[in-house]
Amino acid sequence: MRSCTTLRIGGRALDTLWWVDGENVVAMIDQTLLPGQLKVLKIRTAEAMARAIEIMQVRGAPAIGVSAAMGMALAAARYRGRDTAALRRLIEASASRLAATRPTAVNLFWAIRRMKEAAVAATGTTADITACLIEESKLIHREDVECNMAIGANGAALLPDGARVLTHCNAGSLATAAYGTALGVVRAAWDSGRLAHVYSDETRPRLQGSKLTMWELMADKIPCTMICDNTAATIMAKGLVDAVIVGADRIAANGDTANKIGTYPLSIVAKAHDVPVYVAAPLSTIDYSIPDGSHIVIEERSANEVRLMGKKLICPEGADALNFAFDVTPAKYIDAIITEMGVARKPFKKALAAFRGESIRTDGN
Amino acid sequence: MRSCTTLRIGGRALDTLWWVDGENVVAMIDQTLLPGQLKVLKIRTAEAMARAIEIMQVRGAPAIGVSAAMGMALAAARYRGRDTAALRRLIEASASRLAATRPTAVNLFWAIRRMKEAAVAATGTTADITACLIEESKLIHREDVECNMAIGANGAALLPDGARVLTHCNAGSLATAAYGTALGVVRAAWDSGRLAHVYSDETRPRLQGSKLTMWELMADKIPCTMICDNTAATIMAKGLVDAVIVGADRIAANGDTANKIGTYPLSIVAKAHDVPVYVAAPLSTIDYSIPDGSHIVIEERSANEVRLMGKKLICPEGADALNFAFDVTPAKYIDAIITEMGVARKPFKKALAAFRGESIRTDGN
Repeated sequence: MRSCTTLRIGGRALDTLWWVDGENVVAMIDQTLLPGQLKVLKIRTAEAMARAIEIMQVRGAPAIGVSAAMGMALAAARYRGRDTAALRRLIEASASRLAATRPTAVNLFWAIRRMKEAAVAATGTTADITACLIEESKLIHREDVECNMAIGANGAALLPDGARVLTHCNAGSLATAAYGTALGVVRAAWDSGRLAHVYSDETRPRLQGSKLTMWELMADKIPCTMICDNTAATIMAKGLVDAVIVGADRIAANGDTANKIGTYPLSIVAKAHDVPVYVAAPLSTIDYSIPDGSHIVIEERSANEVRLMGKKLICPEGADALNFAFDVTPAKYIDAIITEMGVARKPFKKALAAFRGESIRTDGN
Repeated sequence: MRSCTTLRIGGRALDTLWWVDGENVVAMIDQTLLPGQLKVLKIRTAEAMARAIEIMQVRGAPAIGVSAAMGMALAAARYRGRDTAALRRLIEASASRLAATRPTAVNLFWAIRRMKEAAVAATGTTADITACLIEESKLIHREDVECNMAIGANGAALLPDGARVLTHCNAGSLATAAYGTALGVVRAAWDSGRLAHVYSDETRPRLQGSKLTMWELMADKIPCTMICDNTAATIMAKGLVDAVIVGADRIAANGDTANKIGTYPLSIVAKAHDVPVYVAAPLSTIDYSIPDGSHIVIEERSANEVRLMGKKLICPEGADALNFAFDVTPAKYIDAIITEMGVARKPFKKALAAFRGESIRTDGN
């Protein structure tokens, strides 16, 4: 499964985060330091994992799902006693803490729920329960990679030969366990010789496009060009874009999609140029509990992310600024939602409902 | 005429650039240092003026028109001989040099043509010719302010009470001789009690919105909030925007408008939200010689403006980047073009043609 091209640095396939068995800690690339520095953090506690999610050392909906799962496993792994009730309380507390980190990406809540279910199902000593949680978090990690490979294959089939793709933010290896969702499609298309070029929106304010997506694409030697977010319309008008492919943080039952701020205007602009918009996401990103996007909580982050570039102020002292981390793209602007179980077309409500309860799990867990 | 609110720093109305009579030099705010530092440059030669335009110490279509005119006056003012033919050759050479600075804003070529005509019409000694050119450049400066006041009044009348306006880039005092075009409308609406709030797109890559527009608005104590360019759609979806008002660098005979990159997607997004888009520009921005926007040359600037923030790289070393300085908004996305002679509505070809040859000049020159 991992023999295909994925992000490789110095010849080795790169995971965003992974469980380190001997130490029972989580190793994780610090994404706030890329592309200047590739540093691997060791995360030892659920609290440290929660902070890493909050300050976006790890980000991307699937990746924070895996992170939260491993955070709960860390909570268990740090417990030294033999009181299973106390351990279960600790696990519950870690779940609450991790759920409070970021409100929009539903994979976070999906992964936490799955870990809670695993904890409830686990029996035996505290060591047994802990082992179960560690295994479940590793399974979530492994399944995410498998999902992304499937998403990649399903999505690549939608692209024309010589495709020029535009993407926004980073829905790559770094936003997932590995391989990526939107960039999973890009990688699969590249491997099959179908991809010509990727344009990467820089993605203000945090520049995940220029910092992370460009780093991934250049590491994989995929031809790529970065643009300011407001340049996408111009390159579409020049006929340089065959498809927009983005990830998702939460998809409502009707297909309305929350994703990084800027996805909504990009989709409106794509529609105006007859460029198809594809959302690539695992089923864990679909929130069947909400009928449409109006129910999605949009995180508002510190205005300093807009005011400061690094530590330098880029506006007058005291300037007011708004910083919504995500926006909601109504389903009408989306042409297809690419999942691991197949491609959903309109009407999305029916197409997505058909996937409900489906799973790529292959181990019978 | 100048008693109305315009940009004031420390109580005095602020010009972007002005002719200093005793010294025969041009004083000019260095806009690359704002908002951190308010420094006034002394420009002594046409070559120095050309460089100031190229590196955007002065920018904005009307302002670079005035700058080019004063640059030609500087060329004359620096000449010490008595050979009128030699002086005329010098003036011609300065015109060519200044015309080669930036290709998109047509005000540059309009101002240069007007100065050339003034030079041709001028008679007498080299001192007489020089005096004529200085006078003409000062007249262009003065008329620009008068145009902007008229644009402001004409545009403010379009806004509802309590208007919330969104603007892109800086079409303010700093983009003109003073007062501004899009921000001229904002100032006039504020003075008449009709304006509630301004949202300023930060305007990547050079951040004229966060650096210059916010600085102007805050100096004038006009309520304002900066947003990343990709946030405009979200605040429109929230119903927070009553009108988009932008400046222009060149308007074709049919109303297609070149303006700062990002104006085109903003206009598409505004249309999708039924928010009117108003272009505010003097008649000198209209290029009657081209039927539509396909004939507008779009400046492509150094990719380093996208790759670097200050001196810091915001992408991997060697990343490819595109940097179109402007885009073209088709007339269909524009609701009205606000000029000093009145408001043009669709069909723009007819409405703009009616203004042709009109002028706000009041001194019979």
